[in-house]
Amino acid sequence: MAEGFSLELLARDGQARRARIRTPHGAIETPAFMPVATFGAVRGIGVDELAEAGVQLLLSNTYHLHERPGEETVEALGGLHGFTGWQGPWLTDSGGFQVTSLAHRAKTDEEGVTFASALDGQRRQLTPEKVIAIQESLGSDIAMVLDECLPVADDAEGRTGLGRLEAALQRTLRWAQRSQKARRRAQQAVFAIVQGGASERLRQQSAEATAAFDFEGYAHGGLGLGESREERRAAVSVANAVLPEDRPRYLMGLGRPRDLMDGVAAGIDLFDCVVPTRNGRHGLLFTSQGTLNLRNAARAREPGPIDPECACPACRRHGRGYLRHLIRSGEALGSRLASLHNLTYYMNLLGRARSAIEAGCFAALQAEIEALAERRV
Amino acid sequence: MAEGFSLELLARDGQARRARIRTPHGAIETPAFMPVATFGAVRGIGVDELAEAGVQLLLSNTYHLHERPGEETVEALGGLHGFTGWQGPWLTDSGGFQVTSLAHRAKTDEEGVTFASALDGQRRQLTPEKVIAIQESLGSDIAMVLDECLPVADDAEGRTGLGRLEAALQRTLRWAQRSQKARRRAQQAVFAIVQGGASERLRQQSAEATAAFDFEGYAHGGLGLGESREERRAAVSVANAVLPEDRPRYLMGLGRPRDLMDGVAAGIDLFDCVVPTRNGRHGLLFTSQGTLNLRNAARAREPGPIDPECACPACRRHGRGYLRHLIRSGEALGSRLASLHNLTYYMNLLGRARSAIEAGCFAALQAEIEALAERRV
Repeated sequence: MAEGFSLELLARDGQARRARIRTPHGAIETPAFMPVATFGAVRGIGVDELAEAGVQLLLSNTYHLHERPGEETVEALGGLHGFTGWQGPWLTDSGGFQVTSLAHRAKTDEEGVTFASALDGQRRQLTPEKVIAIQESLGSDIAMVLDECLPVADDAEGRTGLGRLEAALQRTLRWAQRSQKARRRAQQAVFAIVQGGASERLRQQSAEATAAFDFEGYAHGGLGLGESREERRAAVSVANAVLPEDRPRYLMGLGRPRDLMDGVAAGIDLFDCVVPTRNGRHGLLFTSQGTLNLRNAARAREPGPIDPECACPACRRHGRGYLRHLIRSGEALGSRLASLHNLTYYMNLLGRARSAIEAGCFAALQAEIEALAERRV
Repeated sequence: MAEGFSLELLARDGQARRARIRTPHGAIETPAFMPVATFGAVRGIGVDELAEAGVQLLLSNTYHLHERPGEETVEALGGLHGFTGWQGPWLTDSGGFQVTSLAHRAKTDEEGVTFASALDGQRRQLTPEKVIAIQESLGSDIAMVLDECLPVADDAEGRTGLGRLEAALQRTLRWAQRSQKARRRAQQAVFAIVQGGASERLRQQSAEATAAFDFEGYAHGGLGLGESREERRAAVSVANAVLPEDRPRYLMGLGRPRDLMDGVAAGIDLFDCVVPTRNGRHGLLFTSQGTLNLRNAARAREPGPIDPECACPACRRHGRGYLRHLIRSGEALGSRLASLHNLTYYMNLLGRARSAIEAGCFAALQAEIEALAERRV
């Protein structure tokens, strides 16, 4: 177990859990959502604004930082904490998913993932060992293992076959073992990743085998890639049933408010997703009354705030008409304020989830968010 | 004279003046610099941050707001003050310069400027009367008259001929008269514009004739467009010598720190320019030691702030290596913080100019800034 790292279970409501994860850079009250700081910053938003919005930890993308400025530079400037000025906990992904989805000519074999750098076109390789070493240089509190992540739905062939999913699962297990052996940094937790597509049998098998490696936490990978919502819920539940109770559970890359509620109901502690910031940039805003599309012409002369119940800087200081104008004009202040509003909504939503679990009424909150999901303001 | 508008001379040092301009939305201590809020926002920077940096008034571009969202929308949402949330004074330009430099197929005749909208391609016309009406709808504290602005240096023919400059000057005078007649809004000051290229004779003639129309303030237009620094200083000085002492003098669209010092020395009260924000976006930062280029590779691992003597959010919270990384990665936070740093530098510089004039030692400050202009950190 990494130094300074622990999980304390505080309350339960069905499968939903309310916990506290301790890290060397502070405690995380869970369930918690991690905003995505791809290059070490959350899309125009300052660290003081993130803290004010209630953000507890940030996720940064190892592949992006490896390419630019390089992990040696981040390390020389004090790791992610010193480099960025965000002194709370950091989680870094492994870079594997980013490489296979973003880099040119990515190719996976037993050794790792080979790809052409988007910066200089040179061939580079990410291996389980290399990915741990990079994240140790970055100095994140939580690192992720390299995994082989296949989409549940493959456009070319329909559904990805069980044979291919099982092979990827087995390779991911071998890579997890290599990752565990490669670790040098005592103050960094490492989370392994459960795979298995939408197959409950494979998810259970993956969770059992992964848990045997005794990582500090476990993630559900490869979801949100073509499976149905029911399949996703089942895949998470069957794995959570066999993962150790005293370790954090992280649902990777999902989602929308209702996805978060599904995850919390299934016992997830940690979430990340680009939805709040990306939707914000596009003028899609989450409110207590439903989703508001700022690009809609009806918003042009509305003087009131995005959400009268919100206390974020956008809602405190500006009206819908002005924010719509900024978004449509491509003015950077518009993206920044809209993203910050959505992040504030997410932070408040997770805060309400924590309170609801403590009070034993999480189901009511989930029903409320479900009803809001299709509502347009 | 517009209601609630006055200029009080507080101190002199040579031709340099220290004054206080009262407007319906607060006083402006001059000499003062106006950041450019093209679409009603300063490039990702919030109104609270502008106030904290010492910004006193903002400039917005009439042409851009006329195209999007339209002056009727701004008016419906409370004018520029209600629309944007900036409750201090606003100055709006006439839109003429923007149209002739940005719009398609702009054509100037005695009636006004005709152009094709960048939004929908339709032909539109800005006349002296229309430009006043738009700015009255925008609700700025200070409006500018439409002028005909010819470059001192014309790429096609070398220097713009005196005959053409004099014709533009005469047309600008006729337009100023039409503007004065078109005014309806008592709470808005209107500034007229001195033209005449680099000719001292024409500048003096233009200033004398323009002053006769009794506007609330006067601007020097058509400079920074190809003339030498000496010609520019002479053009400003000769006009200032005949403009009324009790009216603000505004040097339009210039400039760099040394340009501001030249202007202050010649008796200018107000400045605007995109240099601090545009240079910031490009990683060119003004410091107490000279100009810092963040894109320089030597900056990559520097942990210290842009300027140890600066108290802006970028310098308080972040080091050069991180800010360089953000600028190079195209992360919006980089542009925002760098622009805010440069604006803070400008605000401090103008504050020092005001103190120096009061203390009778402005020449020493000007010499210091002159020496810094060529220094690279």
